[in-house]
Amino acid sequence: MNDLRPPAGTSQPSTALHVQPETGYTQLAGPVAPVSQTARDAAGERQRQLTKPPGSLGRLEDLAVAFAGWQGTALPVLDRCRVRVFAADHGIAAEGVSAFPQAVTVEMIRNFARGGAAISVLAQRYGADFRVVNLGTVQPLPDAERHHPAIRDRQLAPGSANICVAAAMDDTLLAAALTAGADEIRGAERCELFIGGEMGIANTATTAALTSALLGLSAADTVGAGTGVDARGLERKRQAVARALDRHLPHCGSPLETLRRLGGLEIAALAGAYVAAAQRGIPSLVDGYICTAAALVACRLNPGVREWLLFAHRSKEPGHRHLLAALNAEPLLDLGLHLGEGSGAAIALPLLRAACALHSGMATFAEAGVSGNDSGGQT
Amino acid sequence: MNDLRPPAGTSQPSTALHVQPETGYTQLAGPVAPVSQTARDAAGERQRQLTKPPGSLGRLEDLAVAFAGWQGTALPVLDRCRVRVFAADHGIAAEGVSAFPQAVTVEMIRNFARGGAAISVLAQRYGADFRVVNLGTVQPLPDAERHHPAIRDRQLAPGSANICVAAAMDDTLLAAALTAGADEIRGAERCELFIGGEMGIANTATTAALTSALLGLSAADTVGAGTGVDARGLERKRQAVARALDRHLPHCGSPLETLRRLGGLEIAALAGAYVAAAQRGIPSLVDGYICTAAALVACRLNPGVREWLLFAHRSKEPGHRHLLAALNAEPLLDLGLHLGEGSGAAIALPLLRAACALHSGMATFAEAGVSGNDSGGQT
Repeated sequence: MNDLRPPAGTSQPSTALHVQPETGYTQLAGPVAPVSQTARDAAGERQRQLTKPPGSLGRLEDLAVAFAGWQGTALPVLDRCRVRVFAADHGIAAEGVSAFPQAVTVEMIRNFARGGAAISVLAQRYGADFRVVNLGTVQPLPDAERHHPAIRDRQLAPGSANICVAAAMDDTLLAAALTAGADEIRGAERCELFIGGEMGIANTATTAALTSALLGLSAADTVGAGTGVDARGLERKRQAVARALDRHLPHCGSPLETLRRLGGLEIAALAGAYVAAAQRGIPSLVDGYICTAAALVACRLNPGVREWLLFAHRSKEPGHRHLLAALNAEPLLDLGLHLGEGSGAAIALPLLRAACALHSGMATFAEAGVSGNDSGGQT
Repeated sequence: MNDLRPPAGTSQPSTALHVQPETGYTQLAGPVAPVSQTARDAAGERQRQLTKPPGSLGRLEDLAVAFAGWQGTALPVLDRCRVRVFAADHGIAAEGVSAFPQAVTVEMIRNFARGGAAISVLAQRYGADFRVVNLGTVQPLPDAERHHPAIRDRQLAPGSANICVAAAMDDTLLAAALTAGADEIRGAERCELFIGGEMGIANTATTAALTSALLGLSAADTVGAGTGVDARGLERKRQAVARALDRHLPHCGSPLETLRRLGGLEIAALAGAYVAAAQRGIPSLVDGYICTAAALVACRLNPGVREWLLFAHRSKEPGHRHLLAALNAEPLLDLGLHLGEGSGAAIALPLLRAACALHSGMATFAEAGVSGNDSGGQT
């Protein structure tokens, strides 16, 4: 089968979530961590006692209550955040669907590591634990990059296959990519938030195909300009995605099979990471179009994942709104972002931190000696 | 005239913008600082060279370019921010338009100073230069508060008059309040941003009347629940605002006269501060409903002010959208906030800082050795 790429000879580290095709990916469906309703209730009660009109901090109140439930305490903190950018190449780039050459994937991995990319600037600014994980590029990373401390080079394959002519991955490669994502959650128990990002030339085309297949939409609904293709490029991209759908849709009987046929290595890794994070009790702040597609796959594989997800922003990519609607998700920001890398999630991180800081740092009516409202609050 | 309240005997510090009725408030109409188109162009060019698809940082790119124009440099910084919360009481509270007793204004002034209010927590978190300015409360501040380093006690009058039965201020008091606001901009030349906030029980009622008068809207269009009045309270509030409009609207021949009749001391101070900030070359990040009404007054007094304003968030108060539309303003956030104090602006501050940090901290295509897009970028 010419659509199957064997994983490269890199050693697989042992992992708590080692996904294997032969065991039916049972670990992906394993229970997520419990959310504490007691802590949520206590946090909600505290919100009503803080020196402000009830509800006046809007969604920041909901965020504080959510973190309380996740952390099992009425006074949650959000200091430590882990950011992982998953990078991989996509065979569909051969169809001329991107405004940038495929070499940019490797070039950007170096840029991430050296601190010049948007997500690098933000991760450093916000004190996040940052790493880029290479899952597979057409040209392997140069030695200087392979051993950079901010890079983990997995190189499972020289990218995923061109979905216009083959399945993106075989079972073994899919399992390896899911596992590689889950691996990045190891040791994250000491973090209060996970942010996943992605880099891969042509991955908005892959995501459009995956989104169309998962939601029963046409290529016209899900294909956007990505990094900025012109009108002719956009038409090429639509046609390529439509061809991929024609080829694979009849065989997409399950979320995993849809991911295997129409996903990408970094998309599978993100899905694995979101599942593993929810299972280990770490909430994820989901970035834009590509990350949200991975999040939908994660929720289809394991519906419990949904209650561990927050959504950062509404991407300019047209397919994103369909994914958000399917996930019943209302993102925090709508700033016309469409960069990827996890950058939109990092931009939203201070809102989450402000929510927790206000929740724990504000005085109650009683503490401040402020009169309550006339419906019977503190006086 | 029983609607005129003389300013209290507090000494007026000398000020660059000492508004006096007899000089026709000419200083309010004085030119604002110039914006550098050269710096804006240079910043826009830099944005196109950074390692990201053009436009992919959305509104954050616009913010970086705006700060470049304001600071006259292609590489703007946003470190120093001045936050001033203006507090005052409102005679319309006597109509039963608020869910909280009027004593809360003074109680919250103490809470601001002691660090327990939302804006206090945020200002400290973000390293802002913070102070609350009391312009006039029904009960004067206790001595312990009057001399607190985080409080400037002006006490121009025991609040503004009840606009249902009188004009809010006389000419002298209006001038003093405008001046008090402008005074808070003194020494802010070393700041890169001004955030104004407000506190005053019943000030959403005042703001509704002011907004209706400025925009030709009914009380039904501009009255909302404020701090959380119930249905009966909301109806009382609508009727009170409608009565105030009936009384004053025939005499509201100018923005200043409208402000004098239907504004409040803190609203006038905010308007004076926004004008003074623009004249001194300091952009303002406008908070919610009350601040935006003050910003509209400022722009009506001096249209040049508009290009020095950013808008932080879309308040839950229904009248806010009319003000934003009149100002052609698209706020950055929409999180259901309706707290006031400047809190929504402070919550948005990290977005502005991220915009500047990304602009200056990201690598260009040339610096990073990343290939440009196929429309002719760097290679």
